[in-house]
Amino acid sequence: MSSDLPVLLAAVSVLSALHMGFQARRVGWSRMKHKIMPPSVTGPAEFERTFRAHQNGVEFYPIFLVLLWTSGIFCNEGLAALGGFLYIVGREIYFTGYINETKKRLPGFYLALCVILILSVMASVGIIQSFLDKYLDIELF
Amino acid sequence: MSSDLPVLLAAVSVLSALHMGFQARRVGWSRMKHKIMPPSVTGPAEFERTFRAHQNGVEFYPIFLVLLWTSGIFCNEGLAALGGFLYIVGREIYFTGYINETKKRLPGFYLALCVILILSVMASVGIIQSFLDKYLDIELF
Amino acid sequence: MSSDLPVLLAAVSVLSALHMGFQARRVGWSRMKHKIMPPSVTGPAEFERTFRAHQNGVEFYPIFLVLLWTSGIFCNEGLAALGGFLYIVGREIYFTGYINETKKRLPGFYLALCVILILSVMASVGIIQSFLDKYLDIELF
Repeated sequence: MSSDLPVLLAAVSVLSALHMGFQARRVGWSRMKHKIMPPSVTGPAEFERTFRAHQNGVEFYPIFLVLLWTSGIFCNEGLAALGGFLYIVGREIYFTGYINETKKRLPGFYLALCVILILSVMASVGIIQSFLDKYLDIELF
Repeated sequence: MSSDLPVLLAAVSVLSALHMGFQARRVGWSRMKHKIMPPSVTGPAEFERTFRAHQNGVEFYPIFLVLLWTSGIFCNEGLAALGGFLYIVGREIYFTGYINETKKRLPGFYLALCVILILSVMASVGIIQSFLDKYLDIELF
Repeated sequence: MSSDLPVLLAAVSVLSALHMGFQARRVGWSRMKHKIMPPSVTGPAEFERTFRAHQNGVEFYPIFLVLLWTSGIFCNEGLAALGGFLYIVGREIYFTGYINETKKRLPGFYLALCVILILSVMASVGIIQSFLDKYLDIELF
């Protein structure tokens, strides 16, 4: 196996995938607690918050993965992996907060959003640099 | 083109992507059959089961892709691809079962879940090994 | 950094991720405009169309990413990136059209679907060729 593989990005990706699976599990537990049989997705407020918390995670997950890998490969793997870890932490705070009260989803959401923005900038800078180098033979740094 | 490319993982990924597209198509057919115009997502029980079967597939798809590629790259490509193929089979059984009856979603779901768990273990073992090798210069096997 | 990195695919991926984030933002704006507090996802027709437009994008996004990267790596990076760019354009036309009227979602959807089909063919041809070369030592072209 090549030792050049981005093992930190892979580690954070697997951790985030397991965390997404755990969120799906918590929706299942909430279904049992409130006796909501699939395919229904409506019920008591707590169940609906749990369901939406998971859905919001699903909506953002591929965006996160794209930015994690492009920023990690084209800019800095260690920083991207650290950002990825903070994203998972933000998502956990978001999920647990949202279950308790709609407003309590915000702190975790802002942390996750912050990471998304930073990874976007890292990815964009790295890709532009790599593009200039590869296609126009311009080395910026 | 390098012959080192993980062609089995790519093949299973494309197959799974087409299967996801096919599921979306079946939701569209169910819309037509039951005359449910978008953006509505509620209606007869059969339509709601079809819709949720697809949504559940969407929720798990990025998790599956992450585990397929990390287990395939860091552990064993052939085994991961075989697991990926079984996951698609599980998802097909799940979808077809769910459309007929809510309870019939379970066998396919458990097969898909089983694959998810095995790929998680393979990915974790491979990544930990690769991490120890790359950063601590420890070779386990 | 290796100059062999698929920078065009990465650029289109980041652009598409930002576009997905922008769509999520527009759902948030629609929530504010129509005063729909999370976790509720029902309300005036315009909000429900905006919400579903985003959901449909979420459902297709991982399919798109798989086909973009496999067609780009195994067939032709430039063509795949061009297709990816057209997909984003299609998705924007779809989203903006859908918000105004359910029927107006169709032109953008068909453009995006067209790209999906072309990328599927490119990916399949490239992967089959690569498979024959790697495992059976047959070179087709």
